[in-house]
Amino acid sequence: MTAMAPIILNCMTTVTDQSDYNKHEDSLTNNLVHVKNPHLDTMEEDILYHFNLGTKTHNLPEMFGDIKFVCVGGSANRMKSFAQFIHQELALPGNIDDIRDICEGTDRYSMYKVGPVLSISHGMGVPSISIMLHELIKLLHHARCHDVIVFRIGTSGGVGLAPGTVVVTDKAVDCFFRAQFEQVVLGKVITRSTVLDMGVSEELLQCSSELNNFPTVIGNTMCTHDFYEGQGRLDGALCSFSTEDKLEYLRKAYDTGVRNIEMESTVFAAMCYACGIKAAVICVTLLNRFDGDQITSSHDVLVEYQQRPQVLVAHFIKKHLGLIL
Amino acid sequence: MTAMAPIILNCMTTVTDQSDYNKHEDSLTNNLVHVKNPHLDTMEEDILYHFNLGTKTHNLPEMFGDIKFVCVGGSANRMKSFAQFIHQELALPGNIDDIRDICEGTDRYSMYKVGPVLSISHGMGVPSISIMLHELIKLLHHARCHDVIVFRIGTSGGVGLAPGTVVVTDKAVDCFFRAQFEQVVLGKVITRSTVLDMGVSEELLQCSSELNNFPTVIGNTMCTHDFYEGQGRLDGALCSFSTEDKLEYLRKAYDTGVRNIEMESTVFAAMCYACGIKAAVICVTLLNRFDGDQITSSHDVLVEYQQRPQVLVAHFIKKHLGLIL
Repeated sequence: MTAMAPIILNCMTTVTDQSDYNKHEDSLTNNLVHVKNPHLDTMEEDILYHFNLGTKTHNLPEMFGDIKFVCVGGSANRMKSFAQFIHQELALPGNIDDIRDICEGTDRYSMYKVGPVLSISHGMGVPSISIMLHELIKLLHHARCHDVIVFRIGTSGGVGLAPGTVVVTDKAVDCFFRAQFEQVVLGKVITRSTVLDMGVSEELLQCSSELNNFPTVIGNTMCTHDFYEGQGRLDGALCSFSTEDKLEYLRKAYDTGVRNIEMESTVFAAMCYACGIKAAVICVTLLNRFDGDQITSSHDVLVEYQQRPQVLVAHFIKKHLGLIL
Repeated sequence: MTAMAPIILNCMTTVTDQSDYNKHEDSLTNNLVHVKNPHLDTMEEDILYHFNLGTKTHNLPEMFGDIKFVCVGGSANRMKSFAQFIHQELALPGNIDDIRDICEGTDRYSMYKVGPVLSISHGMGVPSISIMLHELIKLLHHARCHDVIVFRIGTSGGVGLAPGTVVVTDKAVDCFFRAQFEQVVLGKVITRSTVLDMGVSEELLQCSSELNNFPTVIGNTMCTHDFYEGQGRLDGALCSFSTEDKLEYLRKAYDTGVRNIEMESTVFAAMCYACGIKAAVICVTLLNRFDGDQITSSHDVLVEYQQRPQVLVAHFIKKHLGLIL
């Protein structure tokens, strides 16, 4: 793995590469999900406002204590479909129509529990997934979960890849191609590492070769804060650059190893890493951005593409549960 | 009005204060909604992907040409409630249960049309509302709408205000208290003005004094990119600062004129301004951040608070339509 320049983490840790990641991980005791907030211990009650859950109103250890896999994705409908799909894949008892939205009291996020798997929607963009992750990590902490792996399964624009290709993220990079996430804390900018778990990513690639029914690559994923100007699209309400400017930016991205573009991976990687949670990002590409900006594939084709990360993660989970040898 | 330092806009305009805003506005011909993208004219079809609408598949002028007021807010349920509420307020024919989600083919956003009023959800955070605004502005442009006013009606944390107070935004400021929005375009940072329409804001204040049933103030609104660390909350999964650090930040914000904190106002103001659309932000405060971080009011109290911006904007719309003298 190419060495990265040292990045200063919030929690006084310096990360250089995957070996540091492993050391960091080894230093965490008993694989419990860790919050990094001393104030939480002093609170009588913790209301997870955007989930409509709380420590006084809900028995979180009983509801969630057995969670081992969390899958997150932007769309509420898609995460419901994933819950139903994984229910069938794990051959669990009961009817898939009975899987209910645990957050049904709010429309901010949707959440479904299927055996040891939690499926949650996070909306679009870094701020939206960030709220969800704060409350998810607190939920897993309050529920005393351990040995949890979190997957983001999403959609993305491809950079030099055929539509339908699945990208497992090597490094999550920002719009300047840096493997870091800038978090503003009380008006000051703090830089966090976006290292993901290489072991999980490699296992996912292995799963893809076992399945052998769609192309999967490992590459860098660029995370932007908007869909139009920030990703170099020529079809927004505002656009002040030329086709050549756009292509030059995409070529630069490609040359640094970027293979797809989405809107959540950096903060996802940064928050999971800071809390000692193994994490991976698996996104399908809906188009090749060198060829265009608009998503013109038919509804049925897009639906099939969107199932690919689900199929891959389901295979991973089944292997970990010993359902596939 | 306090003079601001000049801010360089994307479109080669320098804005200093409200008088410049008015000049900029006067310079726009015939009050049509303008896109600032020469590429759009060359496209055979424009697919508004996140709305599941398009120029070839839908007759946008027929569907939306009479729109005069657009109300946007984070929650899909709330924007459906607003559509039903404004239907009753305008005494329109038909049953409120028949108002259907125009974007029902996707779960990214929800959209309801009630006479000349469009009600749309935008999710949480700048990236999420930014995608919606690109597609909304293109929709209004394709539909040849003119003389449109756009309102953001939302919820927020109050800074030195009693819960339930409605804040009409004077200036939308970033987490450094600057009245600007930083947009990344192809890896370069561009700064845009976040000036809102003072005439609309003053009319909204007048509406509140006519209604006389909840407190309304005008003040600056701080827009952050997350709900926890960025807003100085002590109750996230990550927190590295003290209660005193938090209070100092909130006091600084208050001293610069900030009266509430939310997560969408800067990009909302910047994009509407860049496209010559009159815009206002009206958010109710759910708590006073000097007193705490968690939202502990009962469900019924919160529901009533959330109706307040709706009531204010409905009164404004009724006056503009001549339904109230």
